[in-house]
Amino acid sequence: MDNKEISQAVISRLPRYFRYLGELKNEGIERISSQELSDIMKVTASQIRQDFNNFGGFGQQGYGYKVEYLYEEIGRILGLDKTHNLIIIGAGNLGQALANYMNFERRGFLFQGIFDNNPKLFGTRIRNMVVRPMEEMESFIKENKIDIAVLTIPKASALAVAERLVKCGIKGIWNFAHVDLNVPDKIQVENVHLSDSLMKLIYNVNSVDDEWE
Amino acid sequence: MDNKEISQAVISRLPRYFRYLGELKNEGIERISSQELSDIMKVTASQIRQDFNNFGGFGQQGYGYKVEYLYEEIGRILGLDKTHNLIIIGAGNLGQALANYMNFERRGFLFQGIFDNNPKLFGTRIRNMVVRPMEEMESFIKENKIDIAVLTIPKASALAVAERLVKCGIKGIWNFAHVDLNVPDKIQVENVHLSDSLMKLIYNVNSVDDEWE
Repeated sequence: MDNKEISQAVISRLPRYFRYLGELKNEGIERISSQELSDIMKVTASQIRQDFNNFGGFGQQGYGYKVEYLYEEIGRILGLDKTHNLIIIGAGNLGQALANYMNFERRGFLFQGIFDNNPKLFGTRIRNMVVRPMEEMESFIKENKIDIAVLTIPKASALAVAERLVKCGIKGIWNFAHVDLNVPDKIQVENVHLSDSLMKLIYNVNSVDDEWE
Repeated sequence: MDNKEISQAVISRLPRYFRYLGELKNEGIERISSQELSDIMKVTASQIRQDFNNFGGFGQQGYGYKVEYLYEEIGRILGLDKTHNLIIIGAGNLGQALANYMNFERRGFLFQGIFDNNPKLFGTRIRNMVVRPMEEMESFIKENKIDIAVLTIPKASALAVAERLVKCGIKGIWNFAHVDLNVPDKIQVENVHLSDSLMKLIYNVNSVDDEWE
């Protein structure tokens, strides 16, 4: 199976399928048709079938999908059957919030270290980590087989840090800095631009206002 | 201009245009062609022109766009020329991180209150707010003309809180709870599902791994 052929739009939808299937599994539901899944997820049944066909279909038409099997297959496709080592760059409120988010660990996302450039924070304990100075970042990444860096630093320093991360062979960057990173194509970047998301919400709220006036 | 006709995909791109134009403006750049904007934003010039045509075009073909004018127009379209009153539901790490994010205020997003159901937190000061009990939420929303609620609570309580928010006339919900809310269409919801975003990153990192093996 050549993953490269699968569009980012499909991949973006996989975690949501995974989440709904996890809930169905917890409710003890064994089988579900694409139509039933469509009703609860509010996407069309044809979209669901098309998405699943990217991965071989997962089930027989007319018999519905086996919930647990589908849950595990999608988890496997997402790579949740492996563990990944992460570091957080930036020990501010957001970095701390992510460090303390228990569910990540359950999915195999292991936060191994947290870094900051504020000397006042060095040695502070956040969950099971101590805040380390940025100078130690490169050696830490190599020694601890870190795959992924989470950037929760201001945009002014994000580009320079991203460059350092690329040089020491990081594979993915989860970017919360409010800037688009300029990294080689083989480095995967997933942006969470919180301001952009809030602006979109505000736009939609204003549009409804206009409509009702 | 009928905003309803504009697709969510276009609207999703507006904050990014706004961000780049703000940077160009800060650098003192007065005019930019769609081709130059295309180069720095890494989207096609034709996409840029198509997006802008949704709002009347903003400039004359061949002369380029006036940066400051375009910045201000997109800001106006996004509703950033108005202020909005927000509350945060959930005074945990993430709620605190958002409360302390200074840039939101600069954009007219004013956090007026923060709520939690943990009595130990009541009265704690977070920035310029004190943590209030959930019982006070409805009256606070009415008295302070709150438009938007930010949900940073676990998914188990998110659905019930969303229902209460709908009943007291909230217009938009910025949802960080790891669940899709079931609210009437006229309530705008913008989801930030952090786990989904991280899973997508992991998938892409794994795919590149496969490719290079």
